[in-house]
Amino acid sequence: MIDLYTWQTPNGEKPVLMLEECGLDYRLHMVDISAGEQKTPEFLAINPNGKIPALVETTAVRTDAVFESGATLVYLAEKTGRFLPPSGPERYETLAWTFFQAGGTGPMLGQWYHFEKSAPEKLPYAIERYRKESLRLLGVLDERLKDREWIAGAYSIADMMNFGWVRTGLSALKTEGAADLSNLFAWTERVGSRPAVKAAIEKLDQAKRAKTG
Amino acid sequence: MIDLYTWQTPNGEKPVLMLEECGLDYRLHMVDISAGEQKTPEFLAINPNGKIPALVETTAVRTDAVFESGATLVYLAEKTGRFLPPSGPERYETLAWTFFQAGGTGPMLGQWYHFEKSAPEKLPYAIERYRKESLRLLGVLDERLKDREWIAGAYSIADMMNFGWVRTGLSALKTEGAADLSNLFAWTERVGSRPAVKAAIEKLDQAKRAKTG
Repeated sequence: MIDLYTWQTPNGEKPVLMLEECGLDYRLHMVDISAGEQKTPEFLAINPNGKIPALVETTAVRTDAVFESGATLVYLAEKTGRFLPPSGPERYETLAWTFFQAGGTGPMLGQWYHFEKSAPEKLPYAIERYRKESLRLLGVLDERLKDREWIAGAYSIADMMNFGWVRTGLSALKTEGAADLSNLFAWTERVGSRPAVKAAIEKLDQAKRAKTG
Repeated sequence: MIDLYTWQTPNGEKPVLMLEECGLDYRLHMVDISAGEQKTPEFLAINPNGKIPALVETTAVRTDAVFESGATLVYLAEKTGRFLPPSGPERYETLAWTFFQAGGTGPMLGQWYHFEKSAPEKLPYAIERYRKESLRLLGVLDERLKDREWIAGAYSIADMMNFGWVRTGLSALKTEGAADLSNLFAWTERVGSRPAVKAAIEKLDQAKRAKTG
């Protein structure tokens, strides 16, 4: 059985998208990060970095504990043989765009969001630094999608990686100054209209409400 | 033949560590990022994100173009069967700590370095934000290494991923306020004393000097 420890965030959503897409059985454990539950000894035993998501699968022969959203997606892809080609150029294209999110759109949009929305001081230099880099990265994705339906070949873990922060960025942040991002907007619509994506978002939403009341 | 496009930076160094460790033949192309060479049309055709490193391998049957340092390491590991177990729990442990660097020690130490060393304004809030998170991440690695020689099982791509930024962080940034990081210091010594690591650092250094004069 797969136990998924997560919360309703752009990173926490990624393995839920994949589990729903693959139709796998799993138990969803909500780790309330607003209450610091990701820093409990029980959770740190699963992910010593104290961040969601993390996944544990126990079978008769072994236990896998996987943390970092990118690693959970690769794990599930290699377990099921789906959404990441097993070999060939498309495999590494998919992995490149997966790491592009882990080190690019993820942290940079995250920092932008922080300085724009959460930081106790308004720091124009920091806001501008991350706004500019985030819009550049979104522009790279937009250009990539100008003649493609999905980021790398067929719908893949690269799309699942990028979806959450791109959607959050496009809806919550000021992208008016940006170049035309219409390919990217169309892609978020395409991803968002997949039944598995809708089911994942709904399940996380229900589970969060059940937990926080 | 493998063509590697890179520069002497913590990210640019990673695939050189791996190529040297595996004893593979490769051509080293220095992309001078201080002169903006990573934004030329030629380079953007290899990596549309305009960042080093990127790797191109052409064989009789196909061409692989791989960007993002994490993806280049996975590519080379799967090509050679080395430094990333092909299956089992150690594979996903290795991938988890590989993504931990891509989304954690990489961007966070990078932001710390920027605000501490390069930003045109001294912004105490931003410096403290990234100092604190970087030291937390380094502490997680230090704890991980307290009873291990390498980050995940045998020496692996997880070590190669983390080495550059950790070494830069420990030497260039003010870690005095940090908890004891002695396990991490000992690990950087261990990694740094590997012949392949010494060869990689030396080759990059020579190639940079040959290029910039």
